[in-house]
Amino acid sequence: MSYNLLKGKRGIIFGALNDKSIAWKVAERAVEEGAIITLSNTPVAVRMGDTEVLGKKLNAEILPADATNVEDLEMVFTKSMEILGGKIDFVLHSIGMSPNVRKKRTYDDLDYDMLHKTLDISAISFHKMLQVARKLDAIETSGSVLALTYVAAQRVFYGYNDMSDAKALLESITRSFGYIYGRDKGVRVNTISQSPTMTTAGSGVKGMMELLDFSERMAPIGNADADDAADYCVVMFSDLTRKVTMQNLYNDGGFSSMGMSLKAMKQYTKEDDESKLTD
Amino acid sequence: MSYNLLKGKRGIIFGALNDKSIAWKVAERAVEEGAIITLSNTPVAVRMGDTEVLGKKLNAEILPADATNVEDLEMVFTKSMEILGGKIDFVLHSIGMSPNVRKKRTYDDLDYDMLHKTLDISAISFHKMLQVARKLDAIETSGSVLALTYVAAQRVFYGYNDMSDAKALLESITRSFGYIYGRDKGVRVNTISQSPTMTTAGSGVKGMMELLDFSERMAPIGNADADDAADYCVVMFSDLTRKVTMQNLYNDGGFSSMGMSLKAMKQYTKEDDESKLTD
Amino acid sequence: MSYNLLKGKRGIIFGALNDKSIAWKVAERAVEEGAIITLSNTPVAVRMGDTEVLGKKLNAEILPADATNVEDLEMVFTKSMEILGGKIDFVLHSIGMSPNVRKKRTYDDLDYDMLHKTLDISAISFHKMLQVARKLDAIETSGSVLALTYVAAQRVFYGYNDMSDAKALLESITRSFGYIYGRDKGVRVNTISQSPTMTTAGSGVKGMMELLDFSERMAPIGNADADDAADYCVVMFSDLTRKVTMQNLYNDGGFSSMGMSLKAMKQYTKEDDESKLTD
Amino acid sequence: MSYNLLKGKRGIIFGALNDKSIAWKVAERAVEEGAIITLSNTPVAVRMGDTEVLGKKLNAEILPADATNVEDLEMVFTKSMEILGGKIDFVLHSIGMSPNVRKKRTYDDLDYDMLHKTLDISAISFHKMLQVARKLDAIETSGSVLALTYVAAQRVFYGYNDMSDAKALLESITRSFGYIYGRDKGVRVNTISQSPTMTTAGSGVKGMMELLDFSERMAPIGNADADDAADYCVVMFSDLTRKVTMQNLYNDGGFSSMGMSLKAMKQYTKEDDESKLTD
Repeated sequence: MSYNLLKGKRGIIFGALNDKSIAWKVAERAVEEGAIITLSNTPVAVRMGDTEVLGKKLNAEILPADATNVEDLEMVFTKSMEILGGKIDFVLHSIGMSPNVRKKRTYDDLDYDMLHKTLDISAISFHKMLQVARKLDAIETSGSVLALTYVAAQRVFYGYNDMSDAKALLESITRSFGYIYGRDKGVRVNTISQSPTMTTAGSGVKGMMELLDFSERMAPIGNADADDAADYCVVMFSDLTRKVTMQNLYNDGGFSSMGMSLKAMKQYTKEDDESKLTD
Repeated sequence: MSYNLLKGKRGIIFGALNDKSIAWKVAERAVEEGAIITLSNTPVAVRMGDTEVLGKKLNAEILPADATNVEDLEMVFTKSMEILGGKIDFVLHSIGMSPNVRKKRTYDDLDYDMLHKTLDISAISFHKMLQVARKLDAIETSGSVLALTYVAAQRVFYGYNDMSDAKALLESITRSFGYIYGRDKGVRVNTISQSPTMTTAGSGVKGMMELLDFSERMAPIGNADADDAADYCVVMFSDLTRKVTMQNLYNDGGFSSMGMSLKAMKQYTKEDDESKLTD
Repeated sequence: MSYNLLKGKRGIIFGALNDKSIAWKVAERAVEEGAIITLSNTPVAVRMGDTEVLGKKLNAEILPADATNVEDLEMVFTKSMEILGGKIDFVLHSIGMSPNVRKKRTYDDLDYDMLHKTLDISAISFHKMLQVARKLDAIETSGSVLALTYVAAQRVFYGYNDMSDAKALLESITRSFGYIYGRDKGVRVNTISQSPTMTTAGSGVKGMMELLDFSERMAPIGNADADDAADYCVVMFSDLTRKVTMQNLYNDGGFSSMGMSLKAMKQYTKEDDESKLTD
Repeated sequence: MSYNLLKGKRGIIFGALNDKSIAWKVAERAVEEGAIITLSNTPVAVRMGDTEVLGKKLNAEILPADATNVEDLEMVFTKSMEILGGKIDFVLHSIGMSPNVRKKRTYDDLDYDMLHKTLDISAISFHKMLQVARKLDAIETSGSVLALTYVAAQRVFYGYNDMSDAKALLESITRSFGYIYGRDKGVRVNTISQSPTMTTAGSGVKGMMELLDFSERMAPIGNADADDAADYCVVMFSDLTRKVTMQNLYNDGGFSSMGMSLKAMKQYTKEDDESKLTD
């Protein structure tokens, strides 16, 4: 179903790997809503993943780029404006990776070169995107830029490791650059803090299945999935949210506002006698 | 411009007094987006204000009711379902009043009967609405309920008085009932925390002009006005935000994430030499 | 062990019922640290509880009073100044009660007279205390006023019911009055957000044992008990925290900053194979 | 005045440059309260600053070290245990520097090598400290570790530049490592978020005088100075706050809970007619 919310808008979607990716769904929904887009991902991801399949389906050009590389980002913005025929209206940053997690370094045994890489890939790349875009004056007045984040930026989830710190940094960059870009061009910069989602990246998180189950029982409306994320992104890219900026927006079925739900407590206590646990 | 975001949806809008009211704009936009609605306000407001003008324009029935009165609310929900032909998809609570503010009682000289009235009118009325709706099973699965609030719930603004406390209570009720209603029916309950807005109610706030100016200079994108609020409400009523619940959503041009902007500081210091104040 | 942190200071402790009460421990520790105090509680609590035992032990006069009654509070402050020989340096508000919880009304079936009582007893009483004290100019410059609260003000805990809303209101009053009293007299007003504690009041909370267990496993340092609360209160009453005001201070072993701990997850999943759940 | 709050405790203070430094005051107060300490700072700072003067005064050995260098930190902890005769009870991290700020790179023109340096010096150094301490098992059970931060981690202050992001990262590290160290050894890890303070570092912040004035008028109790910070640190190092961890504690006269004060508004509007601006 389409509302034409993004009719005539031009966008860049970073991070669509395969059809489990949130970025993949966002790209599909954005086009459904009338946008024209380009896709960007690392050269390796483009080779290994299905980005080309998506590109064909959506008639979207793929611009392989390392999002930690300023020149690559300049290329992506410059080419996207050429291809799409004008300044960019919206950008999605769906990029995150921790070498420490991959190498199973625990948080009290971090490798610091890897930590810098985690931060560079997962957070500073967002600053680079914004700085490049602004220097090129590549984003349309009142445009909208989003990055995906997780509640681990606010509260500790065991096993999420240095990605928590990267997400906290990402959210701070969102505020800091949101001030500059809002003041100068009315450009909105926000993060969407999504439920744990079973993407290829997500499946690497320690105890992901357990976390999904806990979140599902804690959140009154249950976990938001990639389709829900795509809907929310479309809304935030549209002209209907032009004064919303520098915010971290939870799309999580209410998880972030829960301390303990009855459902989660039932599982926690393994209490079968319902009469003992009611509210 | 319409996207048909609320096509076929039924809504109730509480609190549209005149064309300066946020609720007025929300009613207009909701109908523009395809919804059918009823309007409710206090009998006095209906007599004194222009609600009937709006009702005619939008072909919306007016149901005078005291939102602190449970029976009145039962009537509003029951009649609205009859009139609109089914369960309600969305509700807006745009109600707030402080007798202490009206009577110029300062915060360290509150009248406690008046404080209870402030809380009853501005916050508990929201609980009553939700409790009545749920008992009548009047809200459609995945429906959306919104109340309007202000950042004074988080930070003290001189002169805002006991309305700060009412807004904090309102936001707590949003979370508490959001848990129940989300768990049982997938109904979303959220608040939108709006920039100071020059409504008839807003104009009663002490130092409103000064506050508007300060907010405008602090917020990178400037204050959100009633039209912006209406757009955001439409988005939150739509099916595109079905997993967003128990949240306080700032629609404020970034004000809530600012500590000090260059523009506000220039006014604050009355520094004319720009070179002394740049970033 | 005493540091003489409150040497020569005069205090009023509201809400010491029996030796399980947090207020009881605070009273003991305050006196240990060199303070002289009065104790206040409702006439019923004074009759039913052990307040007199405490009064004798600490050589502290007991002033029975209904904390929702302005005249009673005037009496408490006036008499306390007489008895203790000067203005008051610190006050503890440890008062909370929900008739809805007692009568087993669930949150979607609240009685509204009872809700007003919950708010009056558990939150507005704090405003009354502060307003009375200020009108009588009863608190010493740079004095310190504390109320006890719970994280349910920020996140929903099933079964905590309308006490969540009362605590949110209490914390808002803390900020609102903290502004006034800080500006005029340098008086600090803060809340301490304590771990669930097995007091007589706490034991009435639905699922208290389960909640204690969950909190204990989530909080890296484990739950703070009444003794820990007393230590923290003493610190906040002392001259060493004179610029800390309008804050909500968590004394909870880290619970409030946790999303999921390994220990809690082990219990949640009942996973016995430790190798499957490590971080 | 001393309470002997830290009698017999061993501490390490990082970052005392001269008698304007917060760390300098903390060192003095800690010793006054009965602690024995070592001091650490960069070799350059030791040469240029007055650390040696302080060392002599407090009879504290100085251990020059680059806090971004793991080996240097190992030396500091190892030697401190030798010198002080046992495990360390408390640590202060008062370290921050932004090459981007120094080189007058604005936030939309950051040099990324410099950004990594800002993060390394101002935030990651705290992780390194904690990781080194834990590997050496250098901190006593229930020990206390503090870092100094600023509200710019939550809200944007123009000119604070990439230090905002560094502080956000620092606070996230505090939570993440606080979980680990609390769980394993009961060690507390917290940040104190201090008013803007006229230290040598602080004086480098753009518009520092204006910010001090604004903060002073906004904060009901006024700005906290270095002496206030020292008092609060002593309290957090003591045994009286053993369950407080993973928190960001504002020591700011109430600034963080203010939206607008009457005093600041008077300056903002330059309104001389007091009757027009009262609350």
